[in-house]
Amino acid sequence: MARWEPDSRGRLTQAALALYGERGFENTTVAEIAERAGLTERTFFRHFADKREVLFAGSHELQDKMVSAVREAPEARTPIDVVAAGLEAAAAFLPERERARQRQVIISANHDLQERELIKFASLSAALAETLRGRGLKEPAASLTAELAMSVFRIAFERWVAEDNDRDLSELMGEALGELKAVTAGA
Amino acid sequence: MARWEPDSRGRLTQAALALYGERGFENTTVAEIAERAGLTERTFFRHFADKREVLFAGSHELQDKMVSAVREAPEARTPIDVVAAGLEAAAAFLPERERARQRQVIISANHDLQERELIKFASLSAALAETLRGRGLKEPAASLTAELAMSVFRIAFERWVAEDNDRDLSELMGEALGELKAVTAGA
Repeated sequence: MARWEPDSRGRLTQAALALYGERGFENTTVAEIAERAGLTERTFFRHFADKREVLFAGSHELQDKMVSAVREAPEARTPIDVVAAGLEAAAAFLPERERARQRQVIISANHDLQERELIKFASLSAALAETLRGRGLKEPAASLTAELAMSVFRIAFERWVAEDNDRDLSELMGEALGELKAVTAGA
Repeated sequence: MARWEPDSRGRLTQAALALYGERGFENTTVAEIAERAGLTERTFFRHFADKREVLFAGSHELQDKMVSAVREAPEARTPIDVVAAGLEAAAAFLPERERARQRQVIISANHDLQERELIKFASLSAALAETLRGRGLKEPAASLTAELAMSVFRIAFERWVAEDNDRDLSELMGEALGELKAVTAGA
């Protein structure tokens, strides 16, 4: 196994997504993922703690990107315009649509994965709220703004992975932000 | 066991909340709950499917109340004002603060219960979105409005159970709705 392994992490991810899609997350073993990728289980565990981790490996980085963008965003007219910078950062960070779509189908089919996804969003919301408080925004405005940002994120993301058209995520985020203002303040 | 059992459900709920608080949800058995309530395990299972159910028994009714209120709300200037009727219905339905607070402490201490609570909120959001679509609101406005309502709900609820003061939930909901408009449109 001393041979050179170009992008083993990417190959493992690709193999895992394919297998989860074909036979379901719960019916796929790490051994099968490694085999499909042409690698060993040991290599798998050098990259991922377990097979669930393959689907959530980007979560921390996504959170870091969003938090940094909100922390460094210029002053804006409203808190929601400040947090919009975090949404743009998320749109720039997320993988190409086909992989996101594949992942979404897998998560929707499994209760535990759905719960894990909800926890991820709750954690993102808490991190954004903390960042907004760090910028001097008071409570409950900070928590509320963070929650709104996550709502916009979810709505735009779901449209992005669900629709057949090729509109990009940042455009859909912008549209959802516009909707947010319309449903709260009148268009 | 033919004796008359006035409000066994209430007594079981009270016993369960007390025990979950004292020794943790995971360390409490149904047998102990029944004993504390002075009832049998069989009586427990006539009222609840399992010990988790005690904490989530009101979820369906809460959802029904919110959905009905939104379905029957008069036309309003913005979608968020329509969904505000559902928040008022929730505030009217929820139990008195001390019990809600007790429940919140128990849920915060247990990962599985937190996940279950997130699922409950996601389900409420989906039901509200469907109701709004039934009123003719288009997507993504319907889903977004439902998510915003749930954000307002969560923020107000957390303040209600956390604060020492005795402001009531409907007042805090109204305030969070006002904040929502302020953070999106400028105060």
